[in-house]
Amino acid sequence: MIDLLHTFFHPRSVAVIGTSANPIKLSHGVLRNLITHGYSGSIYPVNPKGGEILGLQVYTSIAEIPDPVDLAVIILAADQTGKALEACGQRGVKAAVLIASGFGEVGAGGREREAQLLEIARRNDMRFIGPNCVGVIDTYSPIDTTFVRTMPGKGAIGFVSHSGAVCGGTMDWASAVGVGFSRVISLGNQVDVNMADALDSLAADPHTEVVVAYVEGLPDGQRFVEAATRLTTAPPSAGTRKPMVVLKAGRTPSGTRAVASHTGALAGADQAFLAACHRAGAIPVENLEQLVDSATALACRQPPQGPKMAILTNAGGPSAVGSDALDRQGLSLADLSSQTQAQLREICPPGTMTGNPVDMLGGPRPEQFTQALEVLVEAPEVDGVMIVYVPQAITPPHDIAVAVGPVAESTQKPVVCNIAGGGGIRAAARALHAHSIPHYLTPARAAFGLGTLWRYHHIRSRHRPEGAPAVAVEQQRARELLEAARSDGRRALDSQAGTELAATYGLSTPFSGLAATAKEAAKLAERAGYPVALKRVAPGVVHKADTGGVVLGLTDTDAVQDAFTHIVRPGERAFVQQMAPMTNGLEVIVGAQRDEQFGPLLMFGLGGAYVEVLKDVAFRLAPLSEADAREMVAQTAAGQLLEGVRGQSPRDVDAVVEALLRVSQLMVELPDVDEIDLNPLIVGQAGEGAWAVDVRVMLGDSTG
Amino acid sequence: MIDLLHTFFHPRSVAVIGTSANPIKLSHGVLRNLITHGYSGSIYPVNPKGGEILGLQVYTSIAEIPDPVDLAVIILAADQTGKALEACGQRGVKAAVLIASGFGEVGAGGREREAQLLEIARRNDMRFIGPNCVGVIDTYSPIDTTFVRTMPGKGAIGFVSHSGAVCGGTMDWASAVGVGFSRVISLGNQVDVNMADALDSLAADPHTEVVVAYVEGLPDGQRFVEAATRLTTAPPSAGTRKPMVVLKAGRTPSGTRAVASHTGALAGADQAFLAACHRAGAIPVENLEQLVDSATALACRQPPQGPKMAILTNAGGPSAVGSDALDRQGLSLADLSSQTQAQLREICPPGTMTGNPVDMLGGPRPEQFTQALEVLVEAPEVDGVMIVYVPQAITPPHDIAVAVGPVAESTQKPVVCNIAGGGGIRAAARALHAHSIPHYLTPARAAFGLGTLWRYHHIRSRHRPEGAPAVAVEQQRARELLEAARSDGRRALDSQAGTELAATYGLSTPFSGLAATAKEAAKLAERAGYPVALKRVAPGVVHKADTGGVVLGLTDTDAVQDAFTHIVRPGERAFVQQMAPMTNGLEVIVGAQRDEQFGPLLMFGLGGAYVEVLKDVAFRLAPLSEADAREMVAQTAAGQLLEGVRGQSPRDVDAVVEALLRVSQLMVELPDVDEIDLNPLIVGQAGEGAWAVDVRVMLGDSTG
Repeated sequence: MIDLLHTFFHPRSVAVIGTSANPIKLSHGVLRNLITHGYSGSIYPVNPKGGEILGLQVYTSIAEIPDPVDLAVIILAADQTGKALEACGQRGVKAAVLIASGFGEVGAGGREREAQLLEIARRNDMRFIGPNCVGVIDTYSPIDTTFVRTMPGKGAIGFVSHSGAVCGGTMDWASAVGVGFSRVISLGNQVDVNMADALDSLAADPHTEVVVAYVEGLPDGQRFVEAATRLTTAPPSAGTRKPMVVLKAGRTPSGTRAVASHTGALAGADQAFLAACHRAGAIPVENLEQLVDSATALACRQPPQGPKMAILTNAGGPSAVGSDALDRQGLSLADLSSQTQAQLREICPPGTMTGNPVDMLGGPRPEQFTQALEVLVEAPEVDGVMIVYVPQAITPPHDIAVAVGPVAESTQKPVVCNIAGGGGIRAAARALHAHSIPHYLTPARAAFGLGTLWRYHHIRSRHRPEGAPAVAVEQQRARELLEAARSDGRRALDSQAGTELAATYGLSTPFSGLAATAKEAAKLAERAGYPVALKRVAPGVVHKADTGGVVLGLTDTDAVQDAFTHIVRPGERAFVQQMAPMTNGLEVIVGAQRDEQFGPLLMFGLGGAYVEVLKDVAFRLAPLSEADAREMVAQTAAGQLLEGVRGQSPRDVDAVVEALLRVSQLMVELPDVDEIDLNPLIVGQAGEGAWAVDVRVMLGDSTG
Repeated sequence: MIDLLHTFFHPRSVAVIGTSANPIKLSHGVLRNLITHGYSGSIYPVNPKGGEILGLQVYTSIAEIPDPVDLAVIILAADQTGKALEACGQRGVKAAVLIASGFGEVGAGGREREAQLLEIARRNDMRFIGPNCVGVIDTYSPIDTTFVRTMPGKGAIGFVSHSGAVCGGTMDWASAVGVGFSRVISLGNQVDVNMADALDSLAADPHTEVVVAYVEGLPDGQRFVEAATRLTTAPPSAGTRKPMVVLKAGRTPSGTRAVASHTGALAGADQAFLAACHRAGAIPVENLEQLVDSATALACRQPPQGPKMAILTNAGGPSAVGSDALDRQGLSLADLSSQTQAQLREICPPGTMTGNPVDMLGGPRPEQFTQALEVLVEAPEVDGVMIVYVPQAITPPHDIAVAVGPVAESTQKPVVCNIAGGGGIRAAARALHAHSIPHYLTPARAAFGLGTLWRYHHIRSRHRPEGAPAVAVEQQRARELLEAARSDGRRALDSQAGTELAATYGLSTPFSGLAATAKEAAKLAERAGYPVALKRVAPGVVHKADTGGVVLGLTDTDAVQDAFTHIVRPGERAFVQQMAPMTNGLEVIVGAQRDEQFGPLLMFGLGGAYVEVLKDVAFRLAPLSEADAREMVAQTAAGQLLEGVRGQSPRDVDAVVEALLRVSQLMVELPDVDEIDLNPLIVGQAGEGAWAVDVRVMLGDSTG
């Protein structure tokens, strides 16, 4: 895999345009970092004033630089940045980092300036990162084009962020506790280079083993999903698949607002984002501590092969809290065998509780930690270990870190460590990280680290199925149904058209038709066979049951004509439909909507009145594989009810899966359809099928 | 309110029994802390070796001390502690702190030693704290009987903990960031003084304004609830009500196990504990960071009057994460009025985004923080403010802390602050806490602090209703029904007896009876009126529907006799029951079980097959008030369905509330009943009532 951003991380020379001799200016900081953080290529400061800064000759313009320039860092005000980018283009510079803010995030004028930047770059065959960013770092190259004072050490984590502040904060933390990075990429407004480009670059980078992304807007969600999927599933031409952790701001109503006012970016709905993570094999997290806690775990350790954890501790209370936290992560305490406990009794201090947690009480010696950890990582019943150590006056925490380090390094099982405390434990944290043991300040965060590894175990062992085979569809008929609604100026298909569309895609639908008169209704009912349902068809009525527009279980001609007269108003029509052919069916919902960022989003859950109240629903992005569809069913309560509870016989899950696949195919093949609901889909006993008795189809705003 | 533990915190003299001259021994640490942490009474070291330690004369025995001794701290091995306690008793000491471990937490031998300690104390009219504890602190008295090196400063938080390690860790953190405590009580094994005693003492302490409890076992859950309720609801004779935060380890299966192996204490079920917190008006938290984050918020600030928050920041990304976090706390971003935004534009740096979050971009000056905060706390549309500051090279974080402090102090609205960073922000954190602004390391934790205040707002404004009036019950008949089962050697009442018991307590039950023959069944069906249900009655069959033992909707004699023949085996009987008199009723469950620690626990949720799959259930402790019952209904999806969705007419919620109250009364009045389920309770339209068609009653193991 080729790194299309290679020049940003391995330029032979860098021009710093707009640098200043004033040491408190950010533009001075960029030059200082390039010089002091080890960059070995040529550095060309540019400032119209000329002179010398930090011992380097200052050029008065980019044109004046005698040698080739690979990368330009432009630190000028927003209104001067375009001109400088143009000058770089003319000078043959192919890569630029734009630091200035005052672009898309401040409104229409800024967006116009962004368009100009893009035009300049395209015309000159350049790529640029930013604007409104803090630059990039590669710790192996090494190069640091940011103005952030601390540069992290070498490590396995590639970090890409829309927010400069999140970059700065994360690097601060990392330096303090000794967590290393391979690359840091501050994307800013991603006018040219965007999140997907950055992910591809990190996929190609041999030093990046874990990718961490802080995301605000994703204007092209589908490219993001594709790039993330390439990263996590080992593209054939690149080395290894890499775990990916992603924090997206703007997942809640308040957060969306914060993102909107911050970058003007459109934030997608939470469910669509989570479905995108699932599709991509990325691990979503909710806040900054989860971001760093996950990254540390994945950078240090392999995932466990099972959920059974051991706790090794000198403190009962904190390890009880840690046990609860493990449980909340879907992990649990291993049952230690009598053999394991006997081995522990031999080496641990007297009084040690050799159950799990293994509590060595007040003041165990460092070598007792070493030996007990050896026993635990070798015990077949243990899949991973969490050390919970509360510093005692007698043993410095650093000694414990050094004591457990080599054991942890010699095992594939995950070992994480919580040592509580303030500044006094920083050395211990650094020693732990040096030995590939992630350190956490609290038991709950250590448990979260293990939980991330467990989640990654599931992702890594997931079978990545091909898309499901499509069924042959009479495309012409499908398009006619959509066009009929369009030509009527309606966004919603009527019940009959919706039902026919569903049938076109192979969904089981009861016989139905539209009747303009009571007599026509009776005729349709005869053809359908009794009992039938009769539903009012009127423009603007979507949830028909809410308005008394539905009568079910009509058993003869008189009842049908009577119902027609009562619920259908003059000029309206009635939708007459055979009742679903099974008794006691379970009502579920199968639906889809087209997400602006991620495309078609499929939904499954309990149907009828329950869907809105219980919110028992699962989401996935289209196209669905059969495995996706089965997963959706299995993760809901509706799925459990379909399997049968309390001795009920199972219902036709295969028919539900088939319905999900067909709706997925429909959404992929008919980009005009914005939303579709089969609610309810009535599911019979195994073999009886699943019937879509109410199909609602909404078209997009334009015919595209 | 009298503080029954007053002597522990205000002794005129303290004997330290078993103190050592060796400075690395814990027993030396206790003496050192008493001396150096400001205790002003007399201190008497006791050690058979005599001599002098830290300048004080050492007595060879407690008897030898010439003056009265109010408090003894005993730091001897487990097997010597009892003897020393006895000596103290004979010397007239009325209060003792026992540090040694090796008691109930190590098994049967230890529990025996605990019983001896209790016997000694009772006989000598003494109280003691521990064993297996680290002692007590009162920062106002002041007195520190622990061996923990750092003593926290004066403050509003009273902290009580079963775990010594949690005490030590919390004090470490508190000292570092400048959070003060009023009292710290390490309870250890709570053989004499227990959690409820400690809560009563903190209720009486004038310096304690917030109570924080770390809880492992609660052998007497009901006393805990009573004491916590006294604390949070202002007992008439004491000053003010106090917020209470409680972290209980052992709420999950893994955590329960960790607690069991740690202290041998029985941990209650999570739901019972949460119901106990609800009853007591205490705020439950899940881990140590939530414990300190909640305590800090409650110690510093008053709760908001509404959920609308403003964020004031210099960093877009972190404040977007903070916005999401606010939303997850049930808070949201305030809509800032055009007036507020105009005021902000006047004082903030150019380019400031005056929507919410108010983003002053890179480097605002401290006085701009002051002025912007003034505008926000005075804006009527803002209920509270979260400051999110990412340190910049130009302005030290401490300057920002000092700039916002006085404004925050002058307003009742909550103001919290997140300044990210490592050691460099400790001074800022101390300055913030000095100005009553809680400081948090991440936006999510700051949002959690505000969330705690919001939860406390709800608790404080909650109407505390009296228990609901009981109905008159034919107690004699109820007892006969229970005794009949007992005398048969059964723990489960049969369907008829269960139904009769429910009817005795005023619940609506359909007419029913037991039939030994098909003919008897038909006779009962005639009396009930068709349609009827027929259910097999056999010992050991609890969920009848699971075994094909139920036939519903029988409409005539033949059908009844036929059903009897098919499902009832020789020697068994049939339960014949009128069908619920409403069509299309909603099935809910009303149930109760007797929790070992907290007593009867009521449950409400969706009934039938749904209850086990959807787990849509609410729990409360008995006795229920009407408000409790209405809350239970309102917080479930079942409640929403009862209210009517999609234009359905509402169902009989009053009848459900009545059923809950009657089951609560039954559980209170019949201690023999261990569990009762009305599943389903079929709820008709408003006015139609709610019918218990299947009543399952289980008795306790012994007749008591």
